[in-house]
Amino acid sequence: MDIVSYPLTFLLIGGDLRQARLAKLLAGRGHDVIVTGMDGLDIHCEELSHAAIAAADWVILPLPVRSGKNVNAPLSEKPIALKPLLDALRPGQKVLGGLADSELLEEMERRKIRFYDYFARDEVAVLNSIATAEGAIAIAMEETPYTLFGANCIVTGYGRVGAALARRLGALGAKVTVAVRSHTSMAKAKEAGCGVLALKDLSLALSGADLVFNTIPARIFDAATLEKAGKNTLFIDLASKPGGMDFQAAGEMGIRAVWALSLPGKVAPQSSGDIIFGAVKNLLEETGVMI
Amino acid sequence: MDIVSYPLTFLLIGGDLRQARLAKLLAGRGHDVIVTGMDGLDIHCEELSHAAIAAADWVILPLPVRSGKNVNAPLSEKPIALKPLLDALRPGQKVLGGLADSELLEEMERRKIRFYDYFARDEVAVLNSIATAEGAIAIAMEETPYTLFGANCIVTGYGRVGAALARRLGALGAKVTVAVRSHTSMAKAKEAGCGVLALKDLSLALSGADLVFNTIPARIFDAATLEKAGKNTLFIDLASKPGGMDFQAAGEMGIRAVWALSLPGKVAPQSSGDIIFGAVKNLLEETGVMI
Amino acid sequence: MDIVSYPLTFLLIGGDLRQARLAKLLAGRGHDVIVTGMDGLDIHCEELSHAAIAAADWVILPLPVRSGKNVNAPLSEKPIALKPLLDALRPGQKVLGGLADSELLEEMERRKIRFYDYFARDEVAVLNSIATAEGAIAIAMEETPYTLFGANCIVTGYGRVGAALARRLGALGAKVTVAVRSHTSMAKAKEAGCGVLALKDLSLALSGADLVFNTIPARIFDAATLEKAGKNTLFIDLASKPGGMDFQAAGEMGIRAVWALSLPGKVAPQSSGDIIFGAVKNLLEETGVMI
Amino acid sequence: MDIVSYPLTFLLIGGDLRQARLAKLLAGRGHDVIVTGMDGLDIHCEELSHAAIAAADWVILPLPVRSGKNVNAPLSEKPIALKPLLDALRPGQKVLGGLADSELLEEMERRKIRFYDYFARDEVAVLNSIATAEGAIAIAMEETPYTLFGANCIVTGYGRVGAALARRLGALGAKVTVAVRSHTSMAKAKEAGCGVLALKDLSLALSGADLVFNTIPARIFDAATLEKAGKNTLFIDLASKPGGMDFQAAGEMGIRAVWALSLPGKVAPQSSGDIIFGAVKNLLEETGVMI
Repeated sequence: MDIVSYPLTFLLIGGDLRQARLAKLLAGRGHDVIVTGMDGLDIHCEELSHAAIAAADWVILPLPVRSGKNVNAPLSEKPIALKPLLDALRPGQKVLGGLADSELLEEMERRKIRFYDYFARDEVAVLNSIATAEGAIAIAMEETPYTLFGANCIVTGYGRVGAALARRLGALGAKVTVAVRSHTSMAKAKEAGCGVLALKDLSLALSGADLVFNTIPARIFDAATLEKAGKNTLFIDLASKPGGMDFQAAGEMGIRAVWALSLPGKVAPQSSGDIIFGAVKNLLEETGVMI
Repeated sequence: MDIVSYPLTFLLIGGDLRQARLAKLLAGRGHDVIVTGMDGLDIHCEELSHAAIAAADWVILPLPVRSGKNVNAPLSEKPIALKPLLDALRPGQKVLGGLADSELLEEMERRKIRFYDYFARDEVAVLNSIATAEGAIAIAMEETPYTLFGANCIVTGYGRVGAALARRLGALGAKVTVAVRSHTSMAKAKEAGCGVLALKDLSLALSGADLVFNTIPARIFDAATLEKAGKNTLFIDLASKPGGMDFQAAGEMGIRAVWALSLPGKVAPQSSGDIIFGAVKNLLEETGVMI
Repeated sequence: MDIVSYPLTFLLIGGDLRQARLAKLLAGRGHDVIVTGMDGLDIHCEELSHAAIAAADWVILPLPVRSGKNVNAPLSEKPIALKPLLDALRPGQKVLGGLADSELLEEMERRKIRFYDYFARDEVAVLNSIATAEGAIAIAMEETPYTLFGANCIVTGYGRVGAALARRLGALGAKVTVAVRSHTSMAKAKEAGCGVLALKDLSLALSGADLVFNTIPARIFDAATLEKAGKNTLFIDLASKPGGMDFQAAGEMGIRAVWALSLPGKVAPQSSGDIIFGAVKNLLEETGVMI
Repeated sequence: MDIVSYPLTFLLIGGDLRQARLAKLLAGRGHDVIVTGMDGLDIHCEELSHAAIAAADWVILPLPVRSGKNVNAPLSEKPIALKPLLDALRPGQKVLGGLADSELLEEMERRKIRFYDYFARDEVAVLNSIATAEGAIAIAMEETPYTLFGANCIVTGYGRVGAALARRLGALGAKVTVAVRSHTSMAKAKEAGCGVLALKDLSLALSGADLVFNTIPARIFDAATLEKAGKNTLFIDLASKPGGMDFQAAGEMGIRAVWALSLPGKVAPQSSGDIIFGAVKNLLEETGVMI
């Protein structure tokens, strides 16, 4: 374990409002925080420099880490190339980031950079499901002329997002049916007060649904299944790519479908930053560093 | 009690999507429905005529009934003047409407028109509170960079809207404090699982609030009180005119405030139409007519 | 308004564990508390004396105040007659108590005793409904071989107890139908997520019910209505006298029925004491005395 | 896959009210059900015979299967020895049962008996957690003089039972803190609206707790930890053997502790029978038999 001297110095590179929130929370704990590639906010932002990298106890890359050949830095006035950054990092340097792809992971391993992915942590996925659920609810409220109260909702899948969403819909008075494959998931959804349905019987139930929320990252709603849906049913697909819907078929049938990806960063960047901060805190604690 | 012969004939004049929904529900029950002043929808709409008025067992005016000198008819291509309509109604004619003002009520009484206000019914107010609560939640979700989960919310007032809103916020994981005057309201909010606060101590709690929802139709949030609020607090005022906020003072202080009036008709016209249909059904049942 | 000098002296006479709790809470606030007629607890208890009455700023009688000709004092080793106590109280003396009958109220008024009934306060009724609901749930859990989760429950009436109970049953996963008379109550129960039923249609729904909770103090369940119930339906009557059931008819039909009266004092005397303390605090505050 | 001819014949041996419920549900589906070793109920019960075994498509043993050298048959007037039963079963015979021990499993495997344990199914554990949670709540209600509403509750562990219990306690208005080890469990409990606590900090929180529910089958509450608890704290241990408490130490310290084992069968035998029926149905379906 390294000897830790406080305050720590964090170098944050790129990112969006989540990264900005993270910067504020780290600074609020009394640490030295150097922010780069985050222009136009009420945060002091400086040029990325070798001095900053040298000073950093921890370099924090954004979520996701990369955008093509650059660091993902939507708020930066100019692009931040990934290659020179990697060149500037020293072997053994500790780097945090979210959602690094395998190519990048290999590259960093080759360079002996000690990389930790905070987004791979389970508690991040659990807590992010809250923002996803709220975002889905907001979309449903905006896109429909009726209240969620009393609406017939189908939720496909009962993982983190499915469970968080089904509970909230039910609490708002919607009639929620969870469609899943396994008897275990069925039992869990039932215990939580939802109606349940075997996924294979989904098409039978579709015609009565006002809203369908998909959380399964597989082509559940192909053209044949969509045929069974009513014309007024709204589909909200929360599954990551490739998504669970044949959007083209839906479009041709006149079925409304919203593919809502990456909701936490969009609808609740501040809460998402809080969650990332918590994950970073837990992660560092596991390396023996208390922040 | 009049002798009733089915199907009944309803003449609907003006109104918005709620009135359109009402037309569909009445027609769905097998009644003859004549629709006027509702252009551009997938509903057959005809000119308002003496024949239609003569044929109508019940004339249904919109919610609110009037807009200046005209029937409130936002979907109508041309205005529908109120005076000639009143002239065309026969003494004893049965008319339904929502939110008729006292001048109009007197006028109709003078003309011996039998007017019933469905919006004055208690069940309408109770059920409309659901859409108001959902609408307020949707606004809060859209206007803030954090989740309602974990947000510090103050709800002032614990009438129908306050209670419906506080319950839903709590179910979504917000920390809800209800600020009210009476010990009874405090006890009710407490029983429902909310934190409670005497209204007179409101300003003490304001600085910690992320969101403040006002449901009290009185100037609760004057300049002096708003001074106590944090700069990031969002105010959502649900109280009918004159509202509960000094919006000008809020604006000058840089405090964000949304005055969200008449949410049910805006965010959930279909559900609102369902509620009006239910009220019309109950109202007619009380006059001995089953629809 | 009287001049108040602290600490105050409270004389508590008779009562059960609720009164004992009240004594502890008053003492915990630093007041002088004289306890009489509450033997066998870990509270110092002394003989009721003229000195104590003279010293008392407030005399606190129990809930209910009287038991026949005596103060209601189930924990006292010997009876405390009401008449001599009234004789010992001075005109103008301030007395608190719960559920005083009209004869007693008149008698005290004649004697110019300033009596305040804490049990008549609305917040007491609201908060007591929680303990009543929990008590009813505990009975249902004990008396049935199935879980409340999934059980078909009918709740008749939607006042305080009905509402508190219906919400809790629903939260535990029971299928709750509320049977009420008014459209307003129906709307309220619906908004809270319950199924609803017109009370006049109650007998139609009875055969499918596992559990029926009555909160209406009127003979809802007469022999003719009970005929419609299944043999395994359990009735729990929470209505005060005369209750809502024909218990004799139920017995003859082999229908199980529990008349659960005065649950708060039985199942949660400590919480009930807390509630009484709160009411006494509010009541005194209204007379200008802060405790 | 065997050829299945309907109705099927089920032979049920021993067991308690859960097994009786199972018998009724199977019979209710039109199957032939032979019941043995279940005297004193309103079910036709016959002697266990070779003919019955020969006729049985499925033999159903109870939950747990064995009691010493006998089949677990608490309702039977005379013991049913396990050894002769095993001798009478033919190789290839299909047998269901719950919680068979490893010795018995090996014995059956040696005899080529096709044994299926319905209690090992995940959905049984999930659904049984409901009855366990309700049973724990009933105990808490009975054993305390206060309402669960407002009570400070600690739940240790957040597996099935912990999660089901924490949700229900929260819904009843208790203040629930979940103490767990992993960040993931903490996040899950937080998402569900509970307060959270690292298990290592448990002793810090103990003194403020009214109720502690343990669901972790490890000695969490040793003498040193119990020292930190208040004298009025009630412990309810739901963990299977060896349990989570040093009951002896608790007793010596005057701390009240209830070891509540096997609640589903005790508090809700009918629902437990329903769950077993569901598991049997799923299990048979997986072998190609629809019941």
